[in-house]
Amino acid sequence: MRYISELHEGETISITYLCKNKQMLKTKAGKSYCSLALQDKTGILDAKIWEMSNAIENFEAMDFIHVDGQLTCFQGALQLNVRRIRRAQEGEYDPVDYIPTSKRDIKEMFGELLTYVNSIKNPYLSKLAKSFFVEDNEFQKAFMYHSAAKSVHHSFMGGLVEHTLGVTKLSDYLAMNYPFLNRDILVTAAMFHDIGKTVELSNFPENDYTDDGQLLGHIYIGTEMVGERIRSIPGFPHKLSAQLRHCILAHHGELEYGSPKKPATAEALALSFADNTDAKMQTVREVLENADEKQEWLGYNRFFESNIRRSEK
Amino acid sequence: MRYISELHEGETISITYLCKNKQMLKTKAGKSYCSLALQDKTGILDAKIWEMSNAIENFEAMDFIHVDGQLTCFQGALQLNVRRIRRAQEGEYDPVDYIPTSKRDIKEMFGELLTYVNSIKNPYLSKLAKSFFVEDNEFQKAFMYHSAAKSVHHSFMGGLVEHTLGVTKLSDYLAMNYPFLNRDILVTAAMFHDIGKTVELSNFPENDYTDDGQLLGHIYIGTEMVGERIRSIPGFPHKLSAQLRHCILAHHGELEYGSPKKPATAEALALSFADNTDAKMQTVREVLENADEKQEWLGYNRFFESNIRRSEK
Amino acid sequence: MRYISELHEGETISITYLCKNKQMLKTKAGKSYCSLALQDKTGILDAKIWEMSNAIENFEAMDFIHVDGQLTCFQGALQLNVRRIRRAQEGEYDPVDYIPTSKRDIKEMFGELLTYVNSIKNPYLSKLAKSFFVEDNEFQKAFMYHSAAKSVHHSFMGGLVEHTLGVTKLSDYLAMNYPFLNRDILVTAAMFHDIGKTVELSNFPENDYTDDGQLLGHIYIGTEMVGERIRSIPGFPHKLSAQLRHCILAHHGELEYGSPKKPATAEALALSFADNTDAKMQTVREVLENADEKQEWLGYNRFFESNIRRSEK
Amino acid sequence: MRYISELHEGETISITYLCKNKQMLKTKAGKSYCSLALQDKTGILDAKIWEMSNAIENFEAMDFIHVDGQLTCFQGALQLNVRRIRRAQEGEYDPVDYIPTSKRDIKEMFGELLTYVNSIKNPYLSKLAKSFFVEDNEFQKAFMYHSAAKSVHHSFMGGLVEHTLGVTKLSDYLAMNYPFLNRDILVTAAMFHDIGKTVELSNFPENDYTDDGQLLGHIYIGTEMVGERIRSIPGFPHKLSAQLRHCILAHHGELEYGSPKKPATAEALALSFADNTDAKMQTVREVLENADEKQEWLGYNRFFESNIRRSEK
Amino acid sequence: MRYISELHEGETISITYLCKNKQMLKTKAGKSYCSLALQDKTGILDAKIWEMSNAIENFEAMDFIHVDGQLTCFQGALQLNVRRIRRAQEGEYDPVDYIPTSKRDIKEMFGELLTYVNSIKNPYLSKLAKSFFVEDNEFQKAFMYHSAAKSVHHSFMGGLVEHTLGVTKLSDYLAMNYPFLNRDILVTAAMFHDIGKTVELSNFPENDYTDDGQLLGHIYIGTEMVGERIRSIPGFPHKLSAQLRHCILAHHGELEYGSPKKPATAEALALSFADNTDAKMQTVREVLENADEKQEWLGYNRFFESNIRRSEK
Amino acid sequence: MRYISELHEGETISITYLCKNKQMLKTKAGKSYCSLALQDKTGILDAKIWEMSNAIENFEAMDFIHVDGQLTCFQGALQLNVRRIRRAQEGEYDPVDYIPTSKRDIKEMFGELLTYVNSIKNPYLSKLAKSFFVEDNEFQKAFMYHSAAKSVHHSFMGGLVEHTLGVTKLSDYLAMNYPFLNRDILVTAAMFHDIGKTVELSNFPENDYTDDGQLLGHIYIGTEMVGERIRSIPGFPHKLSAQLRHCILAHHGELEYGSPKKPATAEALALSFADNTDAKMQTVREVLENADEKQEWLGYNRFFESNIRRSEK
Repeated sequence: MRYISELHEGETISITYLCKNKQMLKTKAGKSYCSLALQDKTGILDAKIWEMSNAIENFEAMDFIHVDGQLTCFQGALQLNVRRIRRAQEGEYDPVDYIPTSKRDIKEMFGELLTYVNSIKNPYLSKLAKSFFVEDNEFQKAFMYHSAAKSVHHSFMGGLVEHTLGVTKLSDYLAMNYPFLNRDILVTAAMFHDIGKTVELSNFPENDYTDDGQLLGHIYIGTEMVGERIRSIPGFPHKLSAQLRHCILAHHGELEYGSPKKPATAEALALSFADNTDAKMQTVREVLENADEKQEWLGYNRFFESNIRRSEK
Repeated sequence: MRYISELHEGETISITYLCKNKQMLKTKAGKSYCSLALQDKTGILDAKIWEMSNAIENFEAMDFIHVDGQLTCFQGALQLNVRRIRRAQEGEYDPVDYIPTSKRDIKEMFGELLTYVNSIKNPYLSKLAKSFFVEDNEFQKAFMYHSAAKSVHHSFMGGLVEHTLGVTKLSDYLAMNYPFLNRDILVTAAMFHDIGKTVELSNFPENDYTDDGQLLGHIYIGTEMVGERIRSIPGFPHKLSAQLRHCILAHHGELEYGSPKKPATAEALALSFADNTDAKMQTVREVLENADEKQEWLGYNRFFESNIRRSEK
Repeated sequence: MRYISELHEGETISITYLCKNKQMLKTKAGKSYCSLALQDKTGILDAKIWEMSNAIENFEAMDFIHVDGQLTCFQGALQLNVRRIRRAQEGEYDPVDYIPTSKRDIKEMFGELLTYVNSIKNPYLSKLAKSFFVEDNEFQKAFMYHSAAKSVHHSFMGGLVEHTLGVTKLSDYLAMNYPFLNRDILVTAAMFHDIGKTVELSNFPENDYTDDGQLLGHIYIGTEMVGERIRSIPGFPHKLSAQLRHCILAHHGELEYGSPKKPATAEALALSFADNTDAKMQTVREVLENADEKQEWLGYNRFFESNIRRSEK
Repeated sequence: MRYISELHEGETISITYLCKNKQMLKTKAGKSYCSLALQDKTGILDAKIWEMSNAIENFEAMDFIHVDGQLTCFQGALQLNVRRIRRAQEGEYDPVDYIPTSKRDIKEMFGELLTYVNSIKNPYLSKLAKSFFVEDNEFQKAFMYHSAAKSVHHSFMGGLVEHTLGVTKLSDYLAMNYPFLNRDILVTAAMFHDIGKTVELSNFPENDYTDDGQLLGHIYIGTEMVGERIRSIPGFPHKLSAQLRHCILAHHGELEYGSPKKPATAEALALSFADNTDAKMQTVREVLENADEKQEWLGYNRFFESNIRRSEK
Repeated sequence: MRYISELHEGETISITYLCKNKQMLKTKAGKSYCSLALQDKTGILDAKIWEMSNAIENFEAMDFIHVDGQLTCFQGALQLNVRRIRRAQEGEYDPVDYIPTSKRDIKEMFGELLTYVNSIKNPYLSKLAKSFFVEDNEFQKAFMYHSAAKSVHHSFMGGLVEHTLGVTKLSDYLAMNYPFLNRDILVTAAMFHDIGKTVELSNFPENDYTDDGQLLGHIYIGTEMVGERIRSIPGFPHKLSAQLRHCILAHHGELEYGSPKKPATAEALALSFADNTDAKMQTVREVLENADEKQEWLGYNRFFESNIRRSEK
Repeated sequence: MRYISELHEGETISITYLCKNKQMLKTKAGKSYCSLALQDKTGILDAKIWEMSNAIENFEAMDFIHVDGQLTCFQGALQLNVRRIRRAQEGEYDPVDYIPTSKRDIKEMFGELLTYVNSIKNPYLSKLAKSFFVEDNEFQKAFMYHSAAKSVHHSFMGGLVEHTLGVTKLSDYLAMNYPFLNRDILVTAAMFHDIGKTVELSNFPENDYTDDGQLLGHIYIGTEMVGERIRSIPGFPHKLSAQLRHCILAHHGELEYGSPKKPATAEALALSFADNTDAKMQTVREVLENADEKQEWLGYNRFFESNIRRSEK
């Protein structure tokens, strides 16, 4: 397959892309046309259907479509003038080519996460963790193939498991080095802290905020998911439940970052540091990887409120 | 009964009070003694048991106790030196004397609130509202005899229903005057916005933050209470549920005031204004009522960040 | 008349518009031309006079002009190449077509406001209110046909009376429901709170910040207008005057919103809530009305610091 | 006269003081007594009248009274037990002894300020300045014998003229060194910037916020005083008036410091720097003068948000 | 030895303490006396010398003194009325008893830190680290026996090495798990990040801010110490020097926390997270250890802006 | 020479410019070309080399080059299509034509600054000041021909000496009018406060942030420069050194403006006011000078957070 990042002006192409967006618009002169956003894992291509004809079959946004057309340059950017479109058949394309994906093996990361699930000694927390990560296939699948964000850090398939693993490992390190921490609460909270994102963001290839996500947010959603499951585990101690859910509610660390409570326990504090550290380390990694290797100063970054510099090797 | 606000130094008393707090302490010289906080609806009295004896029967914090002793003055405040204590019998005292209470009739206010419950036309919202306010006796009782705060505004029995009624009425006014608002969503959200306080604060006479209250907060708790109940109503539309819960989650208006989401719908905005207006009107009312009627300037108030002035009549 | 919102590329037109702006510019090649902004109540049209000739008669910005020309498309927007211009005669056009106007009847709203003027019992406040709203024809006219803003909410003719009425009604509601409020002070302050806008913003069709408006602001200007009028009413009680003016000065609620004093009286607080509520309700109404009816999420709004969502009907 | 700062425990005194405050209170035991705050320019003395008798003549707060009594020590502070009180006769005391006063000669400072009044070339600004500082005797007197604050910097008699002179001189320096500044506007605005304090604070010996001061503030009051006077000067240019009043309105530099407008002209900016610099220099001077000369670090100062250090000589 | 925490009212004692503070004061009645603050590692005792006599030998603040006297209770706190004082001889006391000290073995922690020094591969960074931690005896001693703070976290002897080790270990963890980090820069910066505290705070037993510390701060001081040493190492790469010093300058993460630069490199970011995490983990540890083991809610903590709760074990 | 501000579309030119930037890019069609930024003291010109040929000689960014080509207009801006390029010879051009420069004579300003150097009485401060401004030729040259900023105020050659002189003069004024200030410390600190900018910004014509500048900042760099020089002056009093360096460290006045310490001495406070006042006066001067003389309102300025208005003359 030829990736969007490799296309040139003037080419005539016949390729399958994901149709991320489809809109009927009118020219100034009042003529209708159709504007599409085509996507693969390397980028997005603007396409126009100026004339509706038999060559344009039925399709919807989020379909994989096979397009024929010619590439021109409009206002400094590539534009595809579409001549033919048909829905692609399963088998004609590999969805993986259309979705940005973690560089690490997703199943391997999930496997590593399971070793943490299995390390929890408190029987109630252990049961809770297994009920999601081991026994709940639907959750497992959603969790493994989700991103941890729409854009910013970890916004690729597998991003959620990669970030969760990073936070869990760092939480485990903290539990070992600051022994007054309750490791079981901290590590369990780390594994669950972002599960609300499986609802806040839609699945790939869409990976966009859902209606529930925008109205309720992953912090509330994830805490409620855990609360509901706990109610199905007989004898789960009430205080343990409240403390675990507190860690999830408070993991953004500050009210102005969307946590309705500030961390009040040592574990909630530790989780908020682990989450922030992994998120920021990944953010700076993406800044460094996306810039030219020879560049020293990479430009102002609004997350870090600083111009970012690549260090000496 | 003689109220704490009426006691004088030098008196010998024999009265029933609520024991709000009980602590074993040591003097500098190492001698043990017991320190009590006695309460009625007019205030709090510091009491000490210097000598344990047969005259001091068993009792715990939150018991109503009948105390004998003498009032002295220590560092400018009244102190009771206790000679005898026994648990008071039900019937000996009227709990109402020990609890600050709304000046308005609680049942009347609740009745007025029910007229709003009955005015909701959307069948699902109506069913939801009735399931709490009409059919759930336990909730009804907790809701009616709760405060809306530990201190600040509406921190008295009936405060929760009084505040909820004030917000609901103002929401109704807004729905009438700004007709693009969805009245059913707004009025329902108004009735439910603070129900999490039935869990966040313990019942009177204690009226203090609970463990759950401090760890999770009434915003999360109340939203989850509504979410759980909705799951028991067949066919409740998902979007309606999300929009209603959004109003509750967002009713503090700003992330830094503990809402994990800013208001995103017209109803959520309207509710946040109604809540804030009723809360602040009650706060200023309490400032005015607690000050000498002849005083014009009542001193700096940290909620309003201003010296408050009584206006001309 | 054909409105700007209805024009198409390629048309040749001959229509009267308001010339909101007129500038002499030079092309890169050093040739002079004239750039105009033409306006009607539906929008703004960019026009160019490339060649000065006899066909272009004298005119100034803010004149109504009759233009002939051809519509082309430049960088994605309509542009009028002007061939003839002459000043339009009174009678040829209806100014109302060139000015965005309230959907409600202005005189009716003003009439409703007068019922509040007539409801004031305090003789001094009543006299003051009537001296503006009943006896001062010039003020009356300026007030009725003003906007309440250059852009944002109520930025149309009649916007000032519409907003003032909204705030006054809500103030009346609050006075009724929170009886410790002094209704006369609150309702009078509500009617006067934004009268400084008659000076801060120029009349339609210009509706832009005046020099005085930018240097002094409507809060200072309005308070001074009231202060000066009060000095002409014999025996007006000094304290009443100070409290009324305080409400006007403090109605933005916070120093950082331009009030030089925070609200210190119950009425000043109530007014600041009423003002904020009406302003925000209108803002969200305009967001909802300006968006496609079928769209659920309407995009990020910087006033509300949130993506705004249309609710279920 | 013996100053309060020189009194010792155990002494019997018979001295005239200013009665700044007078309150009837009750002991815990229900007995009435009268509590006084006596003041001279060196401090404040707590006094009690335990027994009302013929020896206690009629007097009110703000009277100069001659007291007889004995000094005791209560909770680590001096307390006067009063035996006799009578109102002091004019002539028996020198009010100057009771009022903290500038170290500089007030008339000399006012004379220096007049040289700036006389240096203004613009005829309208000159007329305006003279109408206050030369022709308005009542204003002159109020201005000369006022403080510039209740507490903080320049809170002594003559403080207003001392601060105004400091700001005017610095403004003159800036006008000379940054010649694009309009010296007449800047220097006039400097002289007028705090005249509202003659209304915001009551005269000595009271020197406290007035009702108007708290409700309206010296920024609004002073701007309005200038505006009213300008209306009595025929032909005063409107733009000049607006720009001058803008400087006064904006002289606190930031909305959150109580200016309803940010400085928009070079002169308004310059004035805000001059005002801030003189105020802070005086504040640090008072910190240094009030501390032991040998101390290097003088403790945390909340205005400067720093521990303050005395420098090497 | 008997510790201050064990003393009782009424005892007569004869013990050696550290005299942390000595002041000559006057009673209200004008009589001179001497007020002392005596310290050991468990707390501070207020002592008074009411009568100077031969029994009171010469001594200064920061001397170890042997005091005889009687313990009384004044305003609820223990006070020692001193009868005799003499300077204690070396050998009479063990300074360790007078200084709060880390629970971990200081030399062992320093040894562990040296393993990190030895793990640095870059020859220049290695040379720099060894020049301080291995070759500079005076620095080594100051570093080992210093606190990391006057109060808050790690304010005990050995606190600086304990905190530095915690940050270095966590930095090493981050370097391992986020391999794009330059481990040598990060680990070196971690070891040096707080060395300025050896100058900012005086040695024990004083452990207070020095004049330089208050005027310049440990961030500037430490960065300059490293800069000066680097100038003595021939060939030290300039960019490496700037990047290392940047990490130290930026380690507080935010300008408002006293770093004159925000972190601009991945290592500077990582160091700021490691520093913050170790500091906060120690702070919460101290909160938990200083509270009664049975208490769940430990009270509001201003660093965490939350009431802190002890978790389930 | 013809300045960039005077060029027109359509011209063929043959002129020497400074090549500020040089980049190899590719067209959409994959063809390589070279993009240049040409500069003189009046502005910047975009230039393209579409065809590499013998006519294009070797050159680098920051070379002065003689270019032949034709001016076209691309997307509304001038663009030079280059035909020939050769490096210009020294003598062919006057570097002064390529660098924005102070309107005041640089040597004269430096001479005026030297009179302040000579006025310092403290022998150590005098020696320090002379060691830089009189004896250190390299520093002198760097200082005189530097800007005080990359953009904003004083971003032209001579800007550093002009700003330093303005701050020093104002500091001298303050020392004279507020005699508790130590003039020697204040005036010396004023002269040194921005010397770190000689390292933070590269020399003209580049005048951009250096690597050290971005990583360490002029505040740290300048303080360290002074600290190092002081170590070479025998007997320089330590406290004087700390207080002087404190003034430099703290001259931005607030932590969030990049000072790692808030001003703690009267001189540090005075310096921060003098620096801020001169910087803002120059900023507003540049705003006024860069706008059309007839314009009253000059548009929103983000430094002043206000629309700026030109005052009456």
